[in-house]
Parts: sequence; C-alpha cells; structure tokens
Amino acid sequence: MDKKRLEISDLGEFGLIDRIAGNFSIKNRSTLKGIGDDAAVLDAGDEAILISTDLLVEGIHFDLAYTPLHHLGYKAVAANVSDIAAMNGKAEQITVSIALSNRFSVDAVDALYEGIKAACDSFTVDLVGGDTTSSRAGLMISITVLGRAKKEKVVYRNGAKPNDIICVTGDLGGAFMGLQILEREKEVYLSNPAMQPEIEKYEYMVGRLLKAEARTDIVADLAEQGVIPTSMIDISDGLASELFHLSKQSNVGIHIFEDKIPIDHQTYDAAIEFKLDPITCALNGGEDYELLFTIAQADYEKLKNHADIHMIGYTNDKPAEKIMVSKQGTVVPLKAQGWNHFAG
Amino acid sequence: MDKKRLEISDLGEFGLIDRIAGNFSIKNRSTLKGIGDDAAVLDAGDEAILISTDLLVEGIHFDLAYTPLHHLGYKAVAANVSDIAAMNGKAEQITVSIALSNRFSVDAVDALYEGIKAACDSFTVDLVGGDTTSSRAGLMISITVLGRAKKEKVVYRNGAKPNDIICVTGDLGGAFMGLQILEREKEVYLSNPAMQPEIEKYEYMVGRLLKAEARTDIVADLAEQGVIPTSMIDISDGLASELFHLSKQSNVGIHIFEDKIPIDHQTYDAAIEFKLDPITCALNGGEDYELLFTIAQADYEKLKNHADIHMIGYTNDKPAEKIMVSKQGTVVPLKAQGWNHFAG
Repeated sequence: MDKKRLEISDLGEFGLIDRIAGNFSIKNRSTLKGIGDDAAVLDAGDEAILISTDLLVEGIHFDLAYTPLHHLGYKAVAANVSDIAAMNGKAEQITVSIALSNRFSVDAVDALYEGIKAACDSFTVDLVGGDTTSSRAGLMISITVLGRAKKEKVVYRNGAKPNDIICVTGDLGGAFMGLQILEREKEVYLSNPAMQPEIEKYEYMVGRLLKAEARTDIVADLAEQGVIPTSMIDISDGLASELFHLSKQSNVGIHIFEDKIPIDHQTYDAAIEFKLDPITCALNGGEDYELLFTIAQADYEKLKNHADIHMIGYTNDKPAEKIMVSKQGTVVPLKAQGWNHFAG
Repeated sequence: MDKKRLEISDLGEFGLIDRIAGNFSIKNRSTLKGIGDDAAVLDAGDEAILISTDLLVEGIHFDLAYTPLHHLGYKAVAANVSDIAAMNGKAEQITVSIALSNRFSVDAVDALYEGIKAACDSFTVDLVGGDTTSSRAGLMISITVLGRAKKEKVVYRNGAKPNDIICVTGDLGGAFMGLQILEREKEVYLSNPAMQPEIEKYEYMVGRLLKAEARTDIVADLAEQGVIPTSMIDISDGLASELFHLSKQSNVGIHIFEDKIPIDHQTYDAAIEFKLDPITCALNGGEDYELLFTIAQADYEKLKNHADIHMIGYTNDKPAEKIMVSKQGTVVPLKAQGWNHFAG
C-alpha cells in the first residue's frame, strides 16, 4: 500500500475537532450554538445556559513533579470558569470526573478536591456530579461547567466588526515563563536531588502557572460599565492563536501594537534570562486565562481608565491581514503557534 | 508510622464519592439537586435541566480486543442518555471528550465518532462540545449529557412510598453473560490465534453488552399512559445494587420475587453452560441499561399489559428489609455486589 496511515498529529487538535464537528448537525431547538466557541449555548427562556468541558491528562497538561494537587484542582475549575467568562456569563455548576491509578492515596484525592472546593467557593460554583474510576496510568480530570447569561448578553467569537478596539486583560506570558522555570528546576533536581529549588524570585510567574484565576471580575466590571463586548475569547493557547480565532470567526483583520501588549516586568526579566523574546512569550505562551475581547469605539470612554484592561489594537475589514506593529514601527505578520497537544 | 496509608480501594467507588460529596454544599438557587441521583437537576423556568456525566477508561470499562470502536461510541452515548431517561427526561445535548494514545489512527477516531453520531441520531441528541487530547496510555472517553423534563415530571430515586409496585424493563443479565462469552473467546484467541471465535449462538448477549440501548421508549410509553413513577434509576451496576439505592434514598423496604425477574432464555442457557446461577447474573450483572422504577398501585392497570415492563415485587415500610422470595418460597436476603471499578 502506498497510502500512509493518517495520523492524528497530521491533523493537529483543531484539525481533528473540525473533522469531527463537520459530521454532526444540530437537531434540537434548545441548542442555540454548538461546537465552535468557548462554550455551547442552550435555550432556557430569557436566559442562555452555557456549557463547556475540558479534559486534563497527567504528563500532557500537568506534571505532578511540580504541581501540587490542590493547585491542580483549583486551576482545573478556574480554566472552565474562564470559558464561561469568555461568553460573558456566570458559571454556576460543574461536574468533575477523575480517573486515577492506584499510586494515588485517598490523601491525594482529598488534596485535589480541596483545590476544587476552594475554586467552587471562590467562583460560587456548585459541584453537582461526576464520576470516579481507576486508570492504568496516572491521573485524568474531566470537568464540565454550566453557566448562565441573559440571552442578549451572550458574547460570541464571531461578533467583532471592523474598527472595533481589541482589548486584553491582565498581563501575558507569565504562565509560560512559570512553566520554563519549573521545568528547569525539575531538571536541576533530577540531576542533583540535594539542590534546593530556586523559585522565590520567580514566584509571580510560577503563581501564574499553578494558581490560574478566571477573570470573572472583568465580566462584572463590563456589566457595571454597561459594556457588552462585540466578541470575546479566553487566552488559553496564547494571544496570537486567540486573535486568529476572532479574526476567522468574525471575518475581520487584526492590527495590534507590540508596545501595547501587557507584560509584567518579572515575566520580561525572566524571559531575557532564559534568552527568550518576551513578546514571543506573550504572543504564544498559553494558560494565562486572561480575556481577549473587542469593543465598539463608542464604548472606549467607559473602559479607558480600567487599570487591568489594555487596548492593544483594532480590527479592520481585511480578514487576511493579521499584523503587529513593532516598537521600531515595522510591520510583522502574526503567527498563531498555540499549543498543540498532539504535536510530536 | 503505625498508620496504614488509606487506599482508595478501602473506600470503594461509592465510599469515595460520599467522602468527596460530603465536603461540598450547594450555593446557587439554580441547583435544584446536586450529587446523588442519576442526574443533577437545574432550574430553567417551567423546565428542569438534567445533567449527568460518565468517564470510560480502556482496560477498566472496555476491552478493545473485542469492542468495535463504533459500538463503543454508541454505547458511551446510550449509557448517558439512559441516566436522563432514569430521571424521566429527554436527553438533548452531549459533550464528548477523548484522550487517546498515538497507537490510534484517524480511522480509529472516525469509527468511534461514527458510533457517537449514530447514537446522537438515534436519540436525537446534539453534540455541542468536547475536548480532544493525547494520552500516554490507551483511550478515555468522558461524556456529559444534558436533558430536559417538565419540573413536575422529574423522577428521583427518593420518591418511592411503602406498597408501591417495583417494575423493571426488558430482561437482565444479558450484558454480563455477553462479557463472560467475549472474555472466554479472548482467552481462546490468545492461546490459539487460528481459532475462529464462536459467538453466533451467543449473539443476543454479546449484542446486549456491545450495543447497549437507552430505554427512551419506556419514558415515552410512561408519558403516554399518564404514569409518573414514584422513583426511578437505571440498571448500570446490577438490579440488586440499584434496589439498594432506591431503598436507601426512599427509605423503604424491598420485597421481590425470583420468578418475576425477567431473564431471556438465551441468557439463562448461557449462564447454565458457564456454571453460573442465572438469577445471580440478573441480580448482580451490570450494564443492562434497563430501567428500574416504582409506581403507585393506582397506576397498576395502566401498565399491566405493557409487554416490556415487568412487575417484580413491592416496597414496604421496613427499610432494613431487602428480600427476594425464591421459586421454592424461601426468603433470601438481597446483597448488592454491584461493580466496583476500584476493587483489586
């Protein structure tokens, strides 16, 4: 046979999802939006029910060598709550299923669920179901979150118009640098277990990775200011990758300015120390769980003084154009590298 | 240290769930019922949203040596739809997350999703989301299902009253015998790969295992007859185990008759061939996905002629009493063995 077996890595995660989703159609009137946004949207009278799900696998999404189980539990919930925030909704229920091998003790499970409970308390979310089973290899966590929003307030990825303002919250690249730091410390530890880890000075980035938060505060601030973004997405795979999603789904071009991209000075310094370009870390590092959204220019005044919302550029009517203006004034095409869990 | 490490197998699956659930409380008014039934129940105006989730792990819940991937996909959906049926509801949406190792080709993923799609079509359910990722060992499938029912029609496990009639649908023990047959054929094959599998005469039981169906037809029949069961549960872990759940949650005793328990003659014959007691297979074999429910005596006339609903006994006001009257007229205490995925 000439025909090479088609491997999943040939398609990549998004290619695989597109291949799967393409075969399915919507049959129930209660399904307002299926696959293709941060969450699906279901009809519930005046309200919309939002639903999103994540599957986390040990060795792929997290490394227990440096991830405390209670942080892992907290983050798993926060990442799902972030998907609901990205629809401009409020998370209210989650289900948590875990598979774990017999190397895990009940104490370990308790630590994981302590983190899950802390997140449920912090985000006012109810744990309403789940499944527990054994696995042959490691830990897996599958979380589904349900949220709500008034129907007219739900924000999709596809609503940006040309000349909207592109906003991001918080700062970017920190979680990515946290990962680099912990990976380096792990190497050091493996080569010499007597070495003490050196992470105090990197506490901010390590915290960004291990103690991720969902920006539910931003959703509340937007509501208070009477602003409904024209499009929104959460930054789980990296700013550039998410900009590409907004561009594709909203059919707009992207024009951002390098000097507007928010990077914490500690992230910046650590990137330099690691001989990495801080901007590349901010553009392509994942797991920051900040929000990326667009607003109509009419809403500029309402948000311009918000300390944690950064206006980094604008959309235009040329969907093929996705560019960044560098600090030197040169125009650089954006590339969406993102995180591909199926990469070799 | 004297203290032995507490192992998950010491608690068992239900013990672990109780331990976890005990630490969580409900904070949102939209959560009408959390952990503890076939599905959680959420407020959506006149309607209730029902939500349930299952995690299936290769080597624990299924063996790909004899489980075709499209059957696996179908069954994974059917098992979840069954949980919604057990609440007297109609499943409308699912999310499907999979983790798979690189031994799986795109063709394998296609086969799995063909089965998922066939089930979505058969049960009129929309696939609205999911996650795909790689795993270091085998295949995992996490499904969450959402369903609906008018609020006053939702049936819980805790509504049975003394002197209600206990009903089961279909026939029991078939899936368990199907598993025995396939395990035997696998052994034969492993010792001599040239041997042809002998499964034609066992087709019914093998079908019960591999091609599980959810009894959505029964939910429709109950509605047509104007019957709302007083309690209901689906039979995934075995009749005896589910009777214990109803007894505990409804605070009623259980009195069933051996000669009323529906067993297909092929299941019966296969059990005898395997030197197993057919009644034990029916009581403790899992994965039949039939419905077990109780009805008020006033509803007896409406269901007595239903060809696929079998009245196997009644409830009483002695919760500690869970007994079966044997064909010989002796009284046997019921034992709930169920399926424990954490057993050694």
